[in-house]
Amino acid sequence: MIRILGIDPGYAIMGWGVIEKNGNSFKPVAYGSLTTDKDMPMPERLKSLYAGLMEIMAEYQPEEMSIEELYFNDNAKTAIFVGQARGVAILAGINSGLRIYEYTPLQIKMNITGFGRADKKQIQFMVKTMLGLKEVPKPDDTADAIAAAICHGRNGDAKKKLFEMK
Amino acid sequence: MIRILGIDPGYAIMGWGVIEKNGNSFKPVAYGSLTTDKDMPMPERLKSLYAGLMEIMAEYQPEEMSIEELYFNDNAKTAIFVGQARGVAILAGINSGLRIYEYTPLQIKMNITGFGRADKKQIQFMVKTMLGLKEVPKPDDTADAIAAAICHGRNGDAKKKLFEMK
Repeated sequence: MIRILGIDPGYAIMGWGVIEKNGNSFKPVAYGSLTTDKDMPMPERLKSLYAGLMEIMAEYQPEEMSIEELYFNDNAKTAIFVGQARGVAILAGINSGLRIYEYTPLQIKMNITGFGRADKKQIQFMVKTMLGLKEVPKPDDTADAIAAAICHGRNGDAKKKLFEMK
Repeated sequence: MIRILGIDPGYAIMGWGVIEKNGNSFKPVAYGSLTTDKDMPMPERLKSLYAGLMEIMAEYQPEEMSIEELYFNDNAKTAIFVGQARGVAILAGINSGLRIYEYTPLQIKMNITGFGRADKKQIQFMVKTMLGLKEVPKPDDTADAIAAAICHGRNGDAKKKLFEMK
């Protein structure tokens, strides 16, 4: 049995979800999203995200973190900002003693739906089904975070990613 | 009298410099760079940068941080990585109780040399001169960090940047 924290990194909304893996089955432990107000100075937003994640990890005691790898093709300014939030999430994980893994959006899609061109709705349907939930978790960022956690839970061989994350 | 920590954010090399401002004069307190090995996993690199900066702030007790605003035109992957390191630096500052300010490379150049097209050598010459140093601080990242600190020290009116940094 292992607890996995999935993270969908963002600075306005950071999705998170803790699941428990037992053999081949998953159950939800807790999930939600951390939000920061756009009127707050960026340092305060990062502080709030870090503190929020540290609390979540202290409360639910996940052993591993799965976080989406980010891709940006166009907007380098957004990339810097999201990178800052992602750095803070990774730091919270490593400072809480978690092992940290990352997956591309494509890996997550393939792992969860078996189909690289699956859309958001299909991923959300699978997240709901695999965890036996009545509703798709909201917002989308939370569902994406849980998808990252499930992807890692189903991907035993990818543990080496820990050491490849440079 | 105020102590200012300048930061040149990077994940392989993070330049830092603490200066003391007294009226219109500056003196160096301590400066250097934190480096992380490219063979370390990224989470460990971020942890090491955060811990290093927290130590520097505990030891030299700066009250304000001045950090370069980053621009990338082309490589969004690099932007994510540098953004992660920058986020961790900002977090270390806010978690140490510093007020945090940011300046664009152009603002720093203009402030230090009076000339927007100044090159690295001119900035380094001014850093050396203004602090009464015998040598230009090495590596370049350290000199850039000190330049950011001096820029902030000379820029009394820009304190509002604290609240603009979103």
